[in-house]
Amino acid sequence: MENGGQEIPEDANEHCPGPQSESAGKSDSCEGCPNQEACATAPKGPDPDLVAIVERMATVKHKILVLSGKGGVGKSTFSAQLSFALAAMDFQVGLLDIDICGPSIPKMLGLEGQEIHQSNLGWSPVYVESNLGVMSIGFMLPNPDEAVIWRGPRKNGIIKQFLKDVYWGELDFLVVDAPPGTSDEHISIVQFLQATGIDGAIIVTTPQQVSLIDVRKEVSFCKKVGLPVLGVVENMSGLCQSLSEFKFLSVAETGEQKDMTEWVIAQMREKVPDMLNFFAFSEVFDSSAGGGAKMCTDMGVPFLGKVPLDPQLCKAAEEGRSCFDDIKCRVSAPAIKMIVDKLLSQVKVSRMEDGA
Amino acid sequence: MENGGQEIPEDANEHCPGPQSESAGKSDSCEGCPNQEACATAPKGPDPDLVAIVERMATVKHKILVLSGKGGVGKSTFSAQLSFALAAMDFQVGLLDIDICGPSIPKMLGLEGQEIHQSNLGWSPVYVESNLGVMSIGFMLPNPDEAVIWRGPRKNGIIKQFLKDVYWGELDFLVVDAPPGTSDEHISIVQFLQATGIDGAIIVTTPQQVSLIDVRKEVSFCKKVGLPVLGVVENMSGLCQSLSEFKFLSVAETGEQKDMTEWVIAQMREKVPDMLNFFAFSEVFDSSAGGGAKMCTDMGVPFLGKVPLDPQLCKAAEEGRSCFDDIKCRVSAPAIKMIVDKLLSQVKVSRMEDGA
Repeated sequence: MENGGQEIPEDANEHCPGPQSESAGKSDSCEGCPNQEACATAPKGPDPDLVAIVERMATVKHKILVLSGKGGVGKSTFSAQLSFALAAMDFQVGLLDIDICGPSIPKMLGLEGQEIHQSNLGWSPVYVESNLGVMSIGFMLPNPDEAVIWRGPRKNGIIKQFLKDVYWGELDFLVVDAPPGTSDEHISIVQFLQATGIDGAIIVTTPQQVSLIDVRKEVSFCKKVGLPVLGVVENMSGLCQSLSEFKFLSVAETGEQKDMTEWVIAQMREKVPDMLNFFAFSEVFDSSAGGGAKMCTDMGVPFLGKVPLDPQLCKAAEEGRSCFDDIKCRVSAPAIKMIVDKLLSQVKVSRMEDGA
Repeated sequence: MENGGQEIPEDANEHCPGPQSESAGKSDSCEGCPNQEACATAPKGPDPDLVAIVERMATVKHKILVLSGKGGVGKSTFSAQLSFALAAMDFQVGLLDIDICGPSIPKMLGLEGQEIHQSNLGWSPVYVESNLGVMSIGFMLPNPDEAVIWRGPRKNGIIKQFLKDVYWGELDFLVVDAPPGTSDEHISIVQFLQATGIDGAIIVTTPQQVSLIDVRKEVSFCKKVGLPVLGVVENMSGLCQSLSEFKFLSVAETGEQKDMTEWVIAQMREKVPDMLNFFAFSEVFDSSAGGGAKMCTDMGVPFLGKVPLDPQLCKAAEEGRSCFDDIKCRVSAPAIKMIVDKLLSQVKVSRMEDGA
């Protein structure tokens, strides 16, 4: 069953990483490798893959991981919009998607159906703009509908290759979008990048307790592996939408519904026309326990801010667009911009052209 | 780093599963086991763990997996409410949470802080009601804030133990809440349960394209491993909430907001009082591409129905309550009930007392 998932073309399959250094420990990629025994008894030296990663990352000034405890909190949407925002500020930006089983980044950057190319410098990212390159396993799958049914070691292998073989060139920021949780991908990315220096992690959450429980685990993961927490973003922090964009229903106690939209809109227009210019706000997820801000105080990590659940932002993400170019995203775009500014004040930013 | 996560007390740690049958393949749990070599050369027989699982599952009539492509689509909320619904129909129900890194089930069933106990029959589930038992790694963690930083093999080990060592007694339904994706946990649960018969999988999604892409992968996973798809549930299918529960804001183009709630409520009360009894509906996530229903038609799998994003349902889930006991959940509870009825018509249901 393990090999039931689709094959990645060319040389993207995991391979024996060669003799391991003591510090790197036994690589998971050794499992099932026919050379495992010979390899284990070979003289030990530094892991050439880790050396290659350090070399690749020498031209990347800042590395930021975007993590979440739970999935579906809008982590990829945030990673995408963060990358758009940094690129709009004229930074050189790379966005690396290490969610192997569910890569959302190609769609969210408007790059569906694109493929990566190889040159003698390595794999080339797919470019949204000249200063925003993207890498994802999504670009490597012959059939986007088919599942990538991989256990951990194979996922670790492709993540290593992304770090080792992608030619990013000079970058101010490499934003790494991780899958939710604290498992193989997370252990691997930290292990592989540790020697190259990581600025830290942004943790995305939603306001309700059930999400915050998982964020606490994510913070504890970061502390355990020595990864600084740059801050927590509370996403989907209440729905905020123009009242004129709603439908209106009468709902019987049985659940039966009747559409009253026309009648309500006509009544508003006639009797309270100002209402049509207002936004309606619903908390959606119960944050009575204090939400992200309180959790940050409890755990001693910075709170970066809240982003409302804005259907216009969802639409921009679905269409692979930047919310900053969209006047309709006026409740979410300023919120995200404020978070990016706060983030930059924490990461000591000097641009590539200022010299490393 | 792999051992950096918290330890599970007692005998829950993974152990060498003993000689493997050819069909079971080399177990991941062998990795790093000091007896690996001796074990590999020992005479092969049927995997005693798989035999034990078959024995345990002999008293369970129906096994249903709840899957999702993406996280955060409300899969655990749905699993919880499905279990509440089946228990309210007087079925004997077990709910098994195999989300190791982010177990939400204890909270969603109102069982936070509970512990499991051991008897000579095995591990006892935690009971919500006499006919609804729950098992989750969440009950075994000394510190709920701490991360479970486990790679695949260890996760597989605990899932095997859940299937092998938990004494459920006679069950009409075992509902298994899986983490999002198609990786270790999914391969393992199917592998471990295959010999015992699984009724099939319910796949939970949200309406937007970026979720549906991942659901297609999940459907392809099910087809690949021979798991019937009982149907797809579209969750968070638009926000539906009483208009009187909203706040109203004026939002300037700069994003600056002013609370106008009091004024708007007063105006409605005076000029259009009927409006206060209506529900406002927002699509939230763009489903212009056809949503879950169209995807099901495309992929040839049943569509079970839609559940709206109902803040009252979120509140019930946060508080570990059944939405069916809550009059306020009147837009979501009937929707979920309809889905459960449709599901039961697909699973050939005969109750435990009717004889297996």
